[in-house]
Amino acid sequence: MNRTLQTVEEELVGLLQKHGDTFLNTKDISLKLGVHPYTVYQAVRELRRWEFQIQSERGKGYRLVESPNLILPAEIKKNLKTKIFGKKIYSYRKVGSTNMLGFRLAETKAEEGTLIVAEEQTKGKGRMGRSWYSPPQLGLWMSLILRPDIPPFKAPGLSICAGLALALAIKEMTGIEAKIKWPNDCLIDGNKVGGILLELSAELDRINFVIVGIGVNVNHSEKDFPKDLASTATSIKIKVGHNISRLSLLTSFLEKFERIYLDFKKNGLSPQREMIKSFSSLLGEKVTVKFGKEKIEGMAEDIDDNGSLVIRTKKGEKMVTAGEVTVL
Amino acid sequence: MNRTLQTVEEELVGLLQKHGDTFLNTKDISLKLGVHPYTVYQAVRELRRWEFQIQSERGKGYRLVESPNLILPAEIKKNLKTKIFGKKIYSYRKVGSTNMLGFRLAETKAEEGTLIVAEEQTKGKGRMGRSWYSPPQLGLWMSLILRPDIPPFKAPGLSICAGLALALAIKEMTGIEAKIKWPNDCLIDGNKVGGILLELSAELDRINFVIVGIGVNVNHSEKDFPKDLASTATSIKIKVGHNISRLSLLTSFLEKFERIYLDFKKNGLSPQREMIKSFSSLLGEKVTVKFGKEKIEGMAEDIDDNGSLVIRTKKGEKMVTAGEVTVL
Repeated sequence: MNRTLQTVEEELVGLLQKHGDTFLNTKDISLKLGVHPYTVYQAVRELRRWEFQIQSERGKGYRLVESPNLILPAEIKKNLKTKIFGKKIYSYRKVGSTNMLGFRLAETKAEEGTLIVAEEQTKGKGRMGRSWYSPPQLGLWMSLILRPDIPPFKAPGLSICAGLALALAIKEMTGIEAKIKWPNDCLIDGNKVGGILLELSAELDRINFVIVGIGVNVNHSEKDFPKDLASTATSIKIKVGHNISRLSLLTSFLEKFERIYLDFKKNGLSPQREMIKSFSSLLGEKVTVKFGKEKIEGMAEDIDDNGSLVIRTKKGEKMVTAGEVTVL
Repeated sequence: MNRTLQTVEEELVGLLQKHGDTFLNTKDISLKLGVHPYTVYQAVRELRRWEFQIQSERGKGYRLVESPNLILPAEIKKNLKTKIFGKKIYSYRKVGSTNMLGFRLAETKAEEGTLIVAEEQTKGKGRMGRSWYSPPQLGLWMSLILRPDIPPFKAPGLSICAGLALALAIKEMTGIEAKIKWPNDCLIDGNKVGGILLELSAELDRINFVIVGIGVNVNHSEKDFPKDLASTATSIKIKVGHNISRLSLLTSFLEKFERIYLDFKKNGLSPQREMIKSFSSLLGEKVTVKFGKEKIEGMAEDIDDNGSLVIRTKKGEKMVTAGEVTVL
């Protein structure tokens, strides 16, 4: 049998969980999993590195005392009802940036739907070269590799689809109606709870791949944010008053995003437009959009089928494909 | 003195060239270059690997019999009058694809203007996942790393600027008026002599970097093209009847492209528009443009300030940012 150590670890956790407080000896585990006792030992060692508290006693074997607060591939997969998203998962304790890893994996041919997830990012990326604060075990820091057969100018639609999926997942879990701030933020009561960072590798009329980076502040308390973020950022916990399961939020998001994404690839943005508009924080507001050296002022009126923001200015309607929006 | 072997090689070639048919002994070379005799030996060995014919005779030393038909960094730099293009050069005998290398170098922070040039590409890239035939020593196969502070939708302008620079360089060297086939080909008498492949790494409203790949069929004879290209491709040699210096073409192209590029970054495409239009093969022609799943038919009328092709259709003007153009 040709199994990776990771598979063995996942099966071992399942086995120990099933046996609750009872010890299981190495020989039994080894027989049940169909692996050499040394592999069992390796798996235990690796799981302990991931903060699984596994007690061992001579002659008795192992038992699982406590599972860590970690998002583990096996647990994601256990409940995930998707066709392509998260079928392949790269999971890390600490990375520079999941988007950066995603980019590298995509270049080496990682398939559509590959998920990169980390407990902590030391160089979490925000838009425009900014950073995204990603402390350990409090949020969802992840990236998806997509390979849509669409021209680059349709990519803004993808960013909004991801935002919509996130808002829907938050609503399903907590009842809170998060808003999508076009093109890439997710807000609760005007404060940033999540962000989407799309990065493309593209020719002029063809996308090679897209990395969709998703950051969600889940279980932060107010004290967990650095001072400079305190007034603009929030977390789901701060709003609902208790911790919520990052794992459930993750699977809910992936399922919703996959459904919307597959529809988007087939039918474009229009089937989602009404939903997107109902979640949008900008429509009906007076805004300025900074886009490179341009600055546009007017009323945010619509989001069109390409995902562009339609702004009614004094000189007529303007379509903006991306930019920095300020509500006046 | 802290010099790379490459610098020593370059100085050694200069020294041997200056001495023509005369032998120079290792000790003299070593003194003149200020390096250890073993370094001289290493440099000679490396140059021979690059097909420099260096004759050595015991007691007499070395002399240069023949320089190879190669584009070498030192020779490029010798005549190049640019500020940023080609200040850093990566030169190879044989690579998969210079664009692919460029992408990797750009990710690891290679600076703007870095040039990657190869004698042969085994996986030369064309647009839309197609290949570009890049046999050894007959063409220019190269890529430039650019980091323009422009939004991605302005990138098509860059492709046309590169095409214009190539047409101007060909005209300067041969008098032949090559045409730019929007958005990325260069034609002589309707046959493809060069191609531009732009690849971006970008966010929705910001370019991380652009790799501009340039392929030029320079000294191919008709027999050098595979059958499937024979009717559509041509080379400069086929048109002018003799070999031309790839090195001169390269430096001429880099100088022209840099001038146009710096202007483009400052003032956009408009200062180049009249020139571009005068070199364009499509304007005034009835065309169809395939762009993803769309197909547009009409008269190619203009190239606008974003580099989009303006087509007069039955339903009015349409702007196309990229696509597959067929002249009807």
